[in-house]
Amino acid sequence: MLFMSVNAGSSSLKWQIYDMPQEKQVAKGMIDRLGTKDAVFSATYNGQEHFKKTEAILTKEAAATLILTRLKNLKIVKHLEDIKGIGHRVVSGGEIFHESTLVDDQVLLKIENLAELAPLHNRVEAYFMNVFQKLLPEVPQVAVFDNSFFSHLSPANYLYPIDKKYYDNYGIRKYGAHGTSHRYVTQRAAELLQKPQAQTNLITLHLGSGASISAIKNGQAIDTSMGFTPLAGIMMGTRSGDVDPSIIPYMMEKEQIKDVKEIIRVLNKESGLLGVSGISNDKRDIDDAAAAGDQRAQLAQQMFANRIVKYVGSYWALLGVQPDALVFTAGIGENDALVRADVCHALRHLGVQLDDQANQVRGQERLISQPDSAVKVYIIPTNEELMIARDTYQLTQKH
Amino acid sequence: MLFMSVNAGSSSLKWQIYDMPQEKQVAKGMIDRLGTKDAVFSATYNGQEHFKKTEAILTKEAAATLILTRLKNLKIVKHLEDIKGIGHRVVSGGEIFHESTLVDDQVLLKIENLAELAPLHNRVEAYFMNVFQKLLPEVPQVAVFDNSFFSHLSPANYLYPIDKKYYDNYGIRKYGAHGTSHRYVTQRAAELLQKPQAQTNLITLHLGSGASISAIKNGQAIDTSMGFTPLAGIMMGTRSGDVDPSIIPYMMEKEQIKDVKEIIRVLNKESGLLGVSGISNDKRDIDDAAAAGDQRAQLAQQMFANRIVKYVGSYWALLGVQPDALVFTAGIGENDALVRADVCHALRHLGVQLDDQANQVRGQERLISQPDSAVKVYIIPTNEELMIARDTYQLTQKH
Repeated sequence: MLFMSVNAGSSSLKWQIYDMPQEKQVAKGMIDRLGTKDAVFSATYNGQEHFKKTEAILTKEAAATLILTRLKNLKIVKHLEDIKGIGHRVVSGGEIFHESTLVDDQVLLKIENLAELAPLHNRVEAYFMNVFQKLLPEVPQVAVFDNSFFSHLSPANYLYPIDKKYYDNYGIRKYGAHGTSHRYVTQRAAELLQKPQAQTNLITLHLGSGASISAIKNGQAIDTSMGFTPLAGIMMGTRSGDVDPSIIPYMMEKEQIKDVKEIIRVLNKESGLLGVSGISNDKRDIDDAAAAGDQRAQLAQQMFANRIVKYVGSYWALLGVQPDALVFTAGIGENDALVRADVCHALRHLGVQLDDQANQVRGQERLISQPDSAVKVYIIPTNEELMIARDTYQLTQKH
Repeated sequence: MLFMSVNAGSSSLKWQIYDMPQEKQVAKGMIDRLGTKDAVFSATYNGQEHFKKTEAILTKEAAATLILTRLKNLKIVKHLEDIKGIGHRVVSGGEIFHESTLVDDQVLLKIENLAELAPLHNRVEAYFMNVFQKLLPEVPQVAVFDNSFFSHLSPANYLYPIDKKYYDNYGIRKYGAHGTSHRYVTQRAAELLQKPQAQTNLITLHLGSGASISAIKNGQAIDTSMGFTPLAGIMMGTRSGDVDPSIIPYMMEKEQIKDVKEIIRVLNKESGLLGVSGISNDKRDIDDAAAAGDQRAQLAQQMFANRIVKYVGSYWALLGVQPDALVFTAGIGENDALVRADVCHALRHLGVQLDDQANQVRGQERLISQPDSAVKVYIIPTNEELMIARDTYQLTQKH
C-alpha cells in the first residue's frame, strides 16, 4: 500500500512515496522554484533512477498535476488509485489540533484560520490539500501538524510570564516547532533503548539551520526551546534565539529604525552563526574558518555549543529524572561531530561519556556514548516524511 | 574606623555606617520621597534607637547635608572626620570598571558617561558622589559597581547571538545586575564551605522583586541571568524575564500600540508574578491567594519555580562540575520557604536533598540541605551595604 507525504513551502514542494506498513521508501522528489518559468522537477525512484527537468511550473495546480502524471509516466505507481493516502506537513495546528487528523472541509477551514500563527505556511499547505483533493477525490488526506507533539505541554511551560490577557485574547504562548522530528526520534530512541515510549525520558536535539531542543518525559514533550515563533531558543544559522527583549528598542534607536518588524527580521535573518561569525550561516563554513584560525568563527562555534549546553541543562533539571539518552538529529546534529563532542564533553559531570571514536560519523544511526555512560547518546537521522506516512497509514486504516 | 555606604536612587537615599574592619553596623537610615515637601528621614542607631521625621528635603545637596548634620546631632559620630571613607553603589560600570574604584574627577566623568546603560541611576549616583565630595573633601570615596562581578564573563557568555556590530558599535551585551549581592553571598558561602573562594563552585539565587541567578566557577561569576538590562532572565515580580522577542510586534499589532517602548514597559511593569496572577507582584500575596485556591496564583507559583529550576539546570550544565552549593538570598530567597522547597525538590535527581525542617526559617543564615546531600543548600541573607563598606575600607587602606 502506497502513501505519499507532502511538504509544501511557499516556493517548493517535496514529496515521498512509502510502501506501508513496511515503511519502504519507493520514491521521492521535489519541485523547486515553484511558480516560475525555471522550476526544477526532480525525482529519485526504483532504487537509483533519477529524473530531473527544468520547466515552467507556474501554479500549485500545475505542480500537483505534474507530480501525479510523472508518478505514472516514470512507472513509480501503476495506477494513481494505488496511492491509499496523502499526508501533508502543516506547520501550525495552533491549540486546535493535538494530533494528526483526516482532512475534511472543516479541518481545511481551521488550518486556513490558523494562518496568522504561520503566515508563510498554513495557507499554502491548505491550498495543496485542496488541490490534491480535487485531483484524487477518492484518496484520503491527512494533516500532520508540526507542533502537535507540543500540545501537551503544561501551562507553566507553554505560557509566558506576561499578563494572561495576551494568551486569553491573542493566543500568545509557546507553540514549538520541529515536532514531527522530535516525535520521530523519540519513537526511534525508545525502540533503540528497548523501553516502552511511555517510560522513556530524553533530551532531543534537532540541530539544523533552524534548531530546537525538547525535553521528553515518559515519551511526551514537556518543554521545547522554540516559542511563539521559531525565533526563540538556541542560536541558529541566522536566528538569534533568546535575547534580552530590551535590546530591540535600543537597536531601533541606535540604527534609527522605525519599524520593530525590521529588527525582528534582523534577529531572524542576520543573526545567529551568520551574525556572530560574519562569514556564513552554514556551520561547515564556520568550522572551516575556525580551523583556519578565524576568531569570530571560533566565537560562533563556542556560542553555539554554549547555548545548546545551557538548554540541555535546563531540561535535565526540568525532567526531574536523569534522561535515558540525548538524541542528536537534523543536518548539524547528524553530521557535525565537533558540536556533538563540544556538547557532550561539557556534560561529562552529569554522566555523559561520549565515545569519541564512535562519534566520528556522519548521518548514521548510532550509539555514540561509551558503554558505561550513565546517559546514552544517540545520533538518529530524522525522518519527518516517514512519520507523516506512518500517521497517514494509521489514520486511513482506522478510516 | 567608620565607613559609610550610600545607595542613591532617583527618589530615595539609603545609607549605613560600619565600624571596620570589625564589620560592625553602627547605624543605618534612609531618606524616602527625596525631592518633595513630605520627605521622610529615618535612622536606626546605637542598637535600638530610632529617629524619624517627615520634612521638606528638596535637593540632593539638602539630603546629604542633613544626613551629615544628623550623624553628629544624633551622636552617631563624634566628628565627621571620623568617617574614613564613603562607598557608593553604582548600577553600571559598563565595560570600563572591572572592580570597585576610588573616585576622582575622571572616574566621575566615566560614570556619568555610562548613564545610557543605567538611565535611572548612574547620573544620580555620580551627582551624590560630587555632593559628598564637596561636603567632605578630605574623605575618600569609592564607587562599587553593581555589575563588576560579571565583568569577567567570557565573550561566549556575554555576547548575544546577533550581528557583532551591535556589540562593537553600541555595546549591546549581557552586563548583569545584583553583582554586589552575588559577590557577597559567594564570599560568605566559601567561608561556610571552608573552601578558598577560588575553588568554590556555586549557583547563587538572588530572588527579590528583581531576581537573578548566577553561575559561580572557581569563585568567579561565569554567567548570570540578567542581560543587557534587568528585564532578562527569570520571571520576577513585575518583569517577564526571557520571552520570544517575536511576541513584541504581535502584541503591538493586536493592542494597536505604536511605540515599542510601551511594550517594554509592559514587560517590565505589568508582567511576571503580577501579570500571570492578576493579583500582586508580591510573592506573599500570591502564596496567600494560592493557598486559598486561586488558580492563577497557583499558576504564577508554578511558573516562578519552573523558570528558576530551568536556569539552575542551565548553569549546572555550564559549570562543568557539580556545584558545591546552591545559595538562596534576597527578599524571596531568604524568606520564602515554599519556593526554596519547590526548587530543591525539583532538583533531587541532581543530588539536592533539602532538609524540609531546616528550610522552615525566614531571613537567617542557615544550611538547609540534609547532611548527606551531594550539593549543599544555604540561605545567606545578602548584605550589599557591608560589601560596599568592605570595598571602601580596603581601597582606602591601600590609599
